[in-house]
Amino acid sequence: MITDREKAAFEAGIKLGAIYHQFVGMPIARETAGAVEAAIEAATGLQPCVTGIRVRLNRDLMVSNRFGYSELAGKMFDIEITTRVGETTCRARMLLEDDYPMMEVIGFS
Amino acid sequence: MITDREKAAFEAGIKLGAIYHQFVGMPIARETAGAVEAAIEAATGLQPCVTGIRVRLNRDLMVSNRFGYSELAGKMFDIEITTRVGETTCRARMLLEDDYPMMEVIGFS
Amino acid sequence: MITDREKAAFEAGIKLGAIYHQFVGMPIARETAGAVEAAIEAATGLQPCVTGIRVRLNRDLMVSNRFGYSELAGKMFDIEITTRVGETTCRARMLLEDDYPMMEVIGFS
Amino acid sequence: MITDREKAAFEAGIKLGAIYHQFVGMPIARETAGAVEAAIEAATGLQPCVTGIRVRLNRDLMVSNRFGYSELAGKMFDIEITTRVGETTCRARMLLEDDYPMMEVIGFS
Repeated sequence: MITDREKAAFEAGIKLGAIYHQFVGMPIARETAGAVEAAIEAATGLQPCVTGIRVRLNRDLMVSNRFGYSELAGKMFDIEITTRVGETTCRARMLLEDDYPMMEVIGFS
Repeated sequence: MITDREKAAFEAGIKLGAIYHQFVGMPIARETAGAVEAAIEAATGLQPCVTGIRVRLNRDLMVSNRFGYSELAGKMFDIEITTRVGETTCRARMLLEDDYPMMEVIGFS
Repeated sequence: MITDREKAAFEAGIKLGAIYHQFVGMPIARETAGAVEAAIEAATGLQPCVTGIRVRLNRDLMVSNRFGYSELAGKMFDIEITTRVGETTCRARMLLEDDYPMMEVIGFS
Repeated sequence: MITDREKAAFEAGIKLGAIYHQFVGMPIARETAGAVEAAIEAATGLQPCVTGIRVRLNRDLMVSNRFGYSELAGKMFDIEITTRVGETTCRARMLLEDDYPMMEVIGFS
């Protein structure tokens, strides 16, 4: 037997792993970060079980290379997502923690 | 000796190859396609030598799976890009041609 | 409180979502599929909590385009992964199911 | 009129841009770098116009995070590719130059 909490945690993990590996490497700058956040939220919101998604990209880390732009790195992600299976909602996040973009389950409701 | 036309064609190729492999696989639907087009245009416009970029995604090919969304496929891309090196501008595109997302140089000016 | 089963399921989800969005779109053919399977297994095996990973890509779906190759699609994935948190092991998979590349927790031990 | 040199340069650009954005972000370590190089070479060799591809990933830059692995970054790429259109061969590369993964046409033959 697999519980709804376990399924919801699994679904949240899928979405965070997907975001990371779909978007890392994308050219980015402070002035385009808003459009990229909107696109990631729009894409993620389409997927099964997602009931909420908030994506913020850390502009302080968007240091320009000599051509005037940066590249989306895992360390820039500040994401909170909620997934729902049955009556259970899982809240999870991706956030920089000691220089590593940590993904974690925050809790259930 | 490498001419400015050759360099501009090379730069246009880089950007089209980059777009394809950065964004293919992204969850998409007709109602989110605009946000994705905007993000691709914003990201590409940051890169060296790009002077123009227009991205249209073919909504007719966005057929929903059983969860109500589709996935960005190479066949959906309709892109026109201009790159500039020295005094030379290269115009190139990616477009579905006989079921293959063909990338081509259109011309120089 | 979040249980080890919930954490292990979350970790398995991360890895499956990551594989999908990192590798979809890659040029592929039957003769290169083995090298790609090996690279995906090697990459995934490095990540936290992974204790086992088996990747098979469905060669029957690798239909050549007019240039003689295909493109890695979600439908080609047949993956089984085990993740471990504390004393708990989670087994999960990605497999084509009714034309959708379904990701599921199989069980715990 | 577009020359074979221009077309070959365009094709080389496509492949370098594709490699960058397909593979950046992949988990990697010194002991898996060989499998990843092989997979990138295999994938790229399938694409139109490619007559040669050599991929080396700079192991010195593969600094382990606290979980014992690194992540494929643009700065690690050392790639040389040849593309052929008609009777013309274009040689191009991607290589770290002043902290930027520079892509350049080397010459034609």
